[in-house]
Amino acid sequence: MEFSSKLLEEAVNEMSQLPGIGRRTALRLVLHLLKQPESQTVALSKSLVDLKTEVKFCKNCHNISDTELCEICANKSRQSEIVCVVEDIRDVMAIENTSQYRGLYHVLGGKINPMEGVGPSQLTIKSLVDKARSGEVKEIIFALSSTLEGDTTNFYIFKQLEGLDIRTSTIARGISVGDELEYADEVTLGRSITNRIPFENSLKS
Amino acid sequence: MEFSSKLLEEAVNEMSQLPGIGRRTALRLVLHLLKQPESQTVALSKSLVDLKTEVKFCKNCHNISDTELCEICANKSRQSEIVCVVEDIRDVMAIENTSQYRGLYHVLGGKINPMEGVGPSQLTIKSLVDKARSGEVKEIIFALSSTLEGDTTNFYIFKQLEGLDIRTSTIARGISVGDELEYADEVTLGRSITNRIPFENSLKS
Repeated sequence: MEFSSKLLEEAVNEMSQLPGIGRRTALRLVLHLLKQPESQTVALSKSLVDLKTEVKFCKNCHNISDTELCEICANKSRQSEIVCVVEDIRDVMAIENTSQYRGLYHVLGGKINPMEGVGPSQLTIKSLVDKARSGEVKEIIFALSSTLEGDTTNFYIFKQLEGLDIRTSTIARGISVGDELEYADEVTLGRSITNRIPFENSLKS
Repeated sequence: MEFSSKLLEEAVNEMSQLPGIGRRTALRLVLHLLKQPESQTVALSKSLVDLKTEVKFCKNCHNISDTELCEICANKSRQSEIVCVVEDIRDVMAIENTSQYRGLYHVLGGKINPMEGVGPSQLTIKSLVDKARSGEVKEIIFALSSTLEGDTTNFYIFKQLEGLDIRTSTIARGISVGDELEYADEVTLGRSITNRIPFENSLKS
């Protein structure tokens, strides 16, 4: 793609570095901004830089927060002895949306992924283990996605917690509510049978 | 979606105003930027604001340009008596990529679209008609997309040019090279038969 303007080329280059945005899409987005009032471009740019420079992470759970302690960690009515380990803020938002969980979270900031150069030290694993050692935590729930990286990370943390008097659990894998059995993959279906629950428990929610 | 941070919410709101970017995608993009070095966010923001505030439009063809006269208009070896009317810079780039056209362009900046409040005065139609009246132009090629809006715009300009000694033409509509006849729509196939060309002409390129 050859551009008639360096300014345009620069903007398209930067925009197309975002994941899932190719050069054609980037050009479409940039041309859209050009047609809108200047205030929109300024607001977008400012909000991105503000977020990047002023963002805070909760000192307890490492979630994105505007304050030192996030709203969830600061909420006295939540059960601070249960900690749910998640990958990022999107998982926190997803679980919060269910209104089924009243414990705290621990945001890892990623999963162990040697292929992409992410080791345990880049994640907030040490902080989680320290928290566990302090004796405040009674149960740790693993809620990472069940990929190779998720399972590796779960297992790494599990090993770090050995010897501590802490219950570890993992969210249930099974057939989604409303799904047809015949379309489910074998691993999921297999696990849903192995980890079957008493029928009366399924009537609760 | 409830966010744990106002800064994050603001960034997602602004990002999701871009066309085709929903709130989930916006969150994904913003979280990606948060993981990257600060320089990337700053570069993206700066390039967008720079483009918006410093962009120039060629005074002859109204294409985006860094200089008063764009490279194409400033190129003496191009045929300045032929002008191809296009909607925006993407069409210029697409036609330039074919290397088949040696005339100049006229970028309208849109199409007449009453539903979206775009009338002839918001486009660069007056400038085109002035150019035509000056006597420098011998042929005007309409290369707008053949939608209701494109056809309306073509016809509006065509009426404005009445009485002037200017040849008007429109790019050929027909079956795409490599396409199967059976899948072509009837209008296109019909036009490709009505506007058939001497066989020897098709051997040229």
